[in-house]
Amino acid sequence: MSHYASAYRILADTLGEDSVLAGLSIDSRFHSDKTSDLSGIPDLVLLPRSTHDVSEALRICSQYGIPVIPRGAGTGVTGGAVAVSGGAILSLERMNAIIETDEKNCTMTVQPGAATGAIQKEALSFGLLYPPDPASLKDCSIGGNLAESSGGPRAVKYGTTKDYVLGVEFVTIDGTIMRSGGKYVKNATGYNLAALLIGSEGTLAVITEITLRLIPAPEHSCDILASFDSLEKAADAVWLITAARLVPVTIEFMEEDAIRFVARNSPIQIPLSSGKAHLLIQLDAGTQRELTTRRKELLRSIKPLKGEVLIAKNEKTRALLWSARRGIRPAIEKESPVFLAEDCVVPRASIPSFVKEVKDFLNGKGLRTVIFGHAGDGNVHIDVLKYEMNYEEWKQMIPSIKKGIYEIAIRSKGTISGEHGIGSVRRDYMHLAFSEEELALMKRIKAAFDPDGLLNPGKMV
Amino acid sequence: MSHYASAYRILADTLGEDSVLAGLSIDSRFHSDKTSDLSGIPDLVLLPRSTHDVSEALRICSQYGIPVIPRGAGTGVTGGAVAVSGGAILSLERMNAIIETDEKNCTMTVQPGAATGAIQKEALSFGLLYPPDPASLKDCSIGGNLAESSGGPRAVKYGTTKDYVLGVEFVTIDGTIMRSGGKYVKNATGYNLAALLIGSEGTLAVITEITLRLIPAPEHSCDILASFDSLEKAADAVWLITAARLVPVTIEFMEEDAIRFVARNSPIQIPLSSGKAHLLIQLDAGTQRELTTRRKELLRSIKPLKGEVLIAKNEKTRALLWSARRGIRPAIEKESPVFLAEDCVVPRASIPSFVKEVKDFLNGKGLRTVIFGHAGDGNVHIDVLKYEMNYEEWKQMIPSIKKGIYEIAIRSKGTISGEHGIGSVRRDYMHLAFSEEELALMKRIKAAFDPDGLLNPGKMV
Repeated sequence: MSHYASAYRILADTLGEDSVLAGLSIDSRFHSDKTSDLSGIPDLVLLPRSTHDVSEALRICSQYGIPVIPRGAGTGVTGGAVAVSGGAILSLERMNAIIETDEKNCTMTVQPGAATGAIQKEALSFGLLYPPDPASLKDCSIGGNLAESSGGPRAVKYGTTKDYVLGVEFVTIDGTIMRSGGKYVKNATGYNLAALLIGSEGTLAVITEITLRLIPAPEHSCDILASFDSLEKAADAVWLITAARLVPVTIEFMEEDAIRFVARNSPIQIPLSSGKAHLLIQLDAGTQRELTTRRKELLRSIKPLKGEVLIAKNEKTRALLWSARRGIRPAIEKESPVFLAEDCVVPRASIPSFVKEVKDFLNGKGLRTVIFGHAGDGNVHIDVLKYEMNYEEWKQMIPSIKKGIYEIAIRSKGTISGEHGIGSVRRDYMHLAFSEEELALMKRIKAAFDPDGLLNPGKMV
Repeated sequence: MSHYASAYRILADTLGEDSVLAGLSIDSRFHSDKTSDLSGIPDLVLLPRSTHDVSEALRICSQYGIPVIPRGAGTGVTGGAVAVSGGAILSLERMNAIIETDEKNCTMTVQPGAATGAIQKEALSFGLLYPPDPASLKDCSIGGNLAESSGGPRAVKYGTTKDYVLGVEFVTIDGTIMRSGGKYVKNATGYNLAALLIGSEGTLAVITEITLRLIPAPEHSCDILASFDSLEKAADAVWLITAARLVPVTIEFMEEDAIRFVARNSPIQIPLSSGKAHLLIQLDAGTQRELTTRRKELLRSIKPLKGEVLIAKNEKTRALLWSARRGIRPAIEKESPVFLAEDCVVPRASIPSFVKEVKDFLNGKGLRTVIFGHAGDGNVHIDVLKYEMNYEEWKQMIPSIKKGIYEIAIRSKGTISGEHGIGSVRRDYMHLAFSEEELALMKRIKAAFDPDGLLNPGKMV
């Protein structure tokens, strides 16, 4: 396409030759993200080094009518950063600086490409905590976390990405640099555009700088692995904990198979032999004494299998438990490289009935599933494994599997996604969660930012 | 105006005669809110009883091109609920039900007219806490709190209204009923319209139902009043506390005059005699022992005047301290019924220089001011008192006073309002905080919801 050729020339002249990739010079990593069974080849890849570069890149692309797909570290699982129908990938990977850690104000200002894990490490060196902890935190970028409204296990106590963003700098498709919020925790001045951008999956604007709120790092914590002889009992324990007025940092739910897959596909061996379902619970507190009190209250509130409680007091055991939890998704990939990963969210107290309904629905279709995830905040991961099923048959089944799961979630007063977003793979199901009028309003908001629909087209709305 | 007459008939037929007021039947309380020196007479007052009523009211008003001013309890201080240029006030006061307290999910679902104080009381009866606590909490409504993105003293530790809203039902100007969010704490499904509506001052839609997140009520707390021999030392203490990794529930700042006015205009007498500035600090903790530890750490981190520390351990003393704090605004009203109330927000660590600059600026104009407020989150209340100044002279000075204060706040990397909003009295100053392009984007978002500009016209954007 000749407009790509002309745009390429101008982009290369403006951003520098090494900041614009086209054709064969595009590395294959830009063909996909971590979404199973999805890829797309971009026409261009842009690698800006500054907000000014982003502004120029967007201005030029919009002049040439070139779609732009913003991309962080490419760890998303709903295809948000995949060029499903061509266009230019705008990778923020070079804009990965931690600009400032402000101890007095307990804030950190970063570029969108900074790794979430690096941000946590930097904060901890000041005795501060950036709580959100997506499973991919070592690799994922903070900009991607904002785009997808990412969560993580610690959301039970500490909330998700949106609860830690004080301000953003962003660039609209015409290249205009704007700001919303700043280094202050309260704000009642104008529309909260920062809040609207979080979770908008790069369809409204490109975030180029983020000011995060940090909190004092908790001084004492412990992890508990508790096993239950039925899925229902484990699910019930989740709301029993919160009904007892306890707020653990995490309540992670793992089905029997999840632990079994990890044991089969990795060197990680969990010293719990029986149980149909497990909860991995983390508690923290300001003093050791308070922590002990809380732990005792917790164990009274739930009723795990006798003898099947592991209290991890040292770092080695804790690391083992969490490597098992974080090892579930990689283990599933080894079991069945093609799989479906859903992350519905429901009211916490509805987890027992939701999990049962979903299991019944999928078993009825003869499918193998693993259920795990962030039970403490109602965010349930449902992974459906293809195994040896014929690929065409699998592809044909997917829409009805997804629709069925989402309908159960919505009937349970929940919704489609708790933390992975909509992206390209769930867009066709938005009408299950929203009315026609609600979707039309979202499209009008999209048009208020991006009238020609050039930013991440085909995603979300 | 005849279209009002026709609309009146249809509205009265649809909502019921007693739900539509016009002309002399309009109670004078609908002429103003708590904004000093501002009033306006609405053409109509609508008093819906249900979401369906709201939908019908908006549909009919939009058909007749009648502007609609949504109104909660009328406790706002920036004129957001005042009919400054006619139109219909849509009062949500009859929709004040607490629909459900869900113990298992730790949520409460309410109508917008429910009083914030009633919500807190209801939550506490379950051992749960709804943390946001605007000074007017006895009277103000939760819908108004959402509209204005209200804060309160406890924001230091617990955040503001926006941090406790899980979902909303809202009605757009054409009468369409929509929802965003629900009874779940994580959500990555579609644009976060609930977050956008919070702080939008009734300019985008009318919120008709709210699902709030509750937290376990803290078991132990104490209040400390500490006095300092200079404003600067008190202001410095604010960031010294957070730099010591302490997170009090509140850090309230009160200038000498604030306490003096309260003593002069009310029966409340604070047993602290000297000091140029005072901090009212609340701490909470899970155990009494932890509370004691924290209190000691806190007193070490700040350096109050020797002997001038009051630790309130019993309810009577605590009530005394807080009645003094909450008595400041009423005392100012008695000192000078006409006054200017600003609530800028700046980075916490910039409070010392901000307060000094503002004082110098206002003293330079020969004005009497009282500075107090939520220092722990950078939200500084600056009240300027007219006293005996000639009214016309005062009115002429106001724009330059406001502009001067806002410019200092913005230069200090803060912004115009932390919790009171923009409303009608600050709208002309939005260009100080936002670029033309940013304001244009806000107007396009407004148009995406309300193409004819009928919802709360003349407010915010």
